[in-house]
Amino acid sequence: MSTAQLFALTPGEPAGIGPDLCLLLARTVQPHPLVAIASRELLSERAVELGLHIELLSASPGNWPSLPAPAGSLYVWDTPLQATVQPGQLDAVNAAYVLQTLTRAGQGCLDGDFAGMITAPVHKGVINEAGIAFSGHTEFLAELTHTEQVVMMLATRGLRVALVTTHLPLKDVAAAITAERLTQVARILHADLVEKFGIAQPRILVCGLNPHAGEGGHLGREEIEVIEPTLELLRGEGLNLIGPLPADTLFTPKHLDHCDAVLAMYHDQGLPVLKYKGFGAAVNVTLGLPIIRTSVDHGTALDLAGSGQIDSGSLQVALETAYMMASSRS
Amino acid sequence: MSTAQLFALTPGEPAGIGPDLCLLLARTVQPHPLVAIASRELLSERAVELGLHIELLSASPGNWPSLPAPAGSLYVWDTPLQATVQPGQLDAVNAAYVLQTLTRAGQGCLDGDFAGMITAPVHKGVINEAGIAFSGHTEFLAELTHTEQVVMMLATRGLRVALVTTHLPLKDVAAAITAERLTQVARILHADLVEKFGIAQPRILVCGLNPHAGEGGHLGREEIEVIEPTLELLRGEGLNLIGPLPADTLFTPKHLDHCDAVLAMYHDQGLPVLKYKGFGAAVNVTLGLPIIRTSVDHGTALDLAGSGQIDSGSLQVALETAYMMASSRS
Repeated sequence: MSTAQLFALTPGEPAGIGPDLCLLLARTVQPHPLVAIASRELLSERAVELGLHIELLSASPGNWPSLPAPAGSLYVWDTPLQATVQPGQLDAVNAAYVLQTLTRAGQGCLDGDFAGMITAPVHKGVINEAGIAFSGHTEFLAELTHTEQVVMMLATRGLRVALVTTHLPLKDVAAAITAERLTQVARILHADLVEKFGIAQPRILVCGLNPHAGEGGHLGREEIEVIEPTLELLRGEGLNLIGPLPADTLFTPKHLDHCDAVLAMYHDQGLPVLKYKGFGAAVNVTLGLPIIRTSVDHGTALDLAGSGQIDSGSLQVALETAYMMASSRS
Repeated sequence: MSTAQLFALTPGEPAGIGPDLCLLLARTVQPHPLVAIASRELLSERAVELGLHIELLSASPGNWPSLPAPAGSLYVWDTPLQATVQPGQLDAVNAAYVLQTLTRAGQGCLDGDFAGMITAPVHKGVINEAGIAFSGHTEFLAELTHTEQVVMMLATRGLRVALVTTHLPLKDVAAAITAERLTQVARILHADLVEKFGIAQPRILVCGLNPHAGEGGHLGREEIEVIEPTLELLRGEGLNLIGPLPADTLFTPKHLDHCDAVLAMYHDQGLPVLKYKGFGAAVNVTLGLPIIRTSVDHGTALDLAGSGQIDSGSLQVALETAYMMASSRS
């Protein structure tokens, strides 16, 4: 039976701050039942390191909670480690554990056990070191769910920025802005704003690729040759796309006050403003998946694991966003 | 005789909002004497259009004001138009007039008549249409002052962003980030922060070129091959350079609270945040010139000329910045 409003939380890299974030979170009550998919032993030891008293409650398939855990407690679907963890010390032996938590969460979403999953950071390097090709949560979940194209969107209160290209060297960006890619990304963004964010007619601002959006061809021709004709075709499908606009003036209230999302052509065109505005409370949302997945926007912060000196703002927004998306969808 | 604290103001394109901005400004008294280099007839007619009563006072070489104009008046160094101007209607015949105002201002700075110049927007297209090769204020003033390399910096209250490359198609940016260019730009930025901004030991944050500053070479190698070794050499010269840092996390208080300027590798990496933060009150400063020059950060807004529906926030910051720079220098 589907428990539509149960959510999965993966603490990610066990030597990083993910377990700490989950424990800090458990001090207060969540609006929905939430299950951490993690090693019970790990969470128990980390709680001692942090001087926190968190009661770890059991959850597992067939034994899902129907109510949120009380303040000071956390539901855990115990997923054993391969080796004991020292905070801050990466160990490739535990790579399989990390992937197991992701598989359980993603498959649980596909199976209807979970309404969505929220992920804390993993460490790509140590998973690859273990001999497992892994380029990130997003790609892993795309494969698990048989999704061809996904879109990375960062969001904070009052601003959403989706990207046409993500983790590419800057020199390769211009060639990657093709009509095909732009079409796929814009369609996914539009569809997910409707379906997962409950926005009936989303209004999307689109950045140019070049400075001043090419200034009529004087500063690059991709706007004229690729972006403008593609946007025009997409408008014919009913998408409300404004642009291409110069990125340096797009992020001002005159434009932003009347839009639901910004579509930037590449990583450092769109994310500096988002993170400046978000100030430690941004969330990474993967669009295009058949499941709801949100993530913190920061890394494993190995040096801070076990210290208690961390800010759970991003995880809080990741949770709120997943809850909101699930409610828009249901 | 040098009148060190007299400033020149050029209204730029006569059919745009530059004349309007100068007239709006003249309603209140400035802290320093200021001379508009413009057609007296143009300003007089535009004042009528705007319903403003501004007294136009004469100024010219040998006849400079020693005190600020009273509120409601403006010093004008009359510079005749070639043809009468209709607000919003470009006319290539007046291109020579526009350049004459810039030459007078720039040469006056070089001669010591002016402590600095503040420029309102010109229209590049109409100047080129007149058969005069012109790629912008910055390049024009570089040539007039025999300056080989200049640096574009945008500033708003609390943030300064300088650019290694400016108006280049995005596809050409990576190849333009050379050790030579980065060295020249960083040296100019450092020197002008010391000399023109009065910062004894400027601390400069440097962006990487690639997303995540290349992530150890996985997302591009320019950081490893060009940027890091160049910064290391420059540190040996005494420059305080932090980076290369990922642009998406650089613009957060953790980093910004302890820096005097950010050096971005390209236009849309640095300027969206600056203009988001600046919110209509950003100023463009040309570094590397032997003179002080600041400018508004917006265009000619032809459709708003004569309407009175304009915001003079950017001109106000441009003036304040020029005054501050001249006082740091003197």
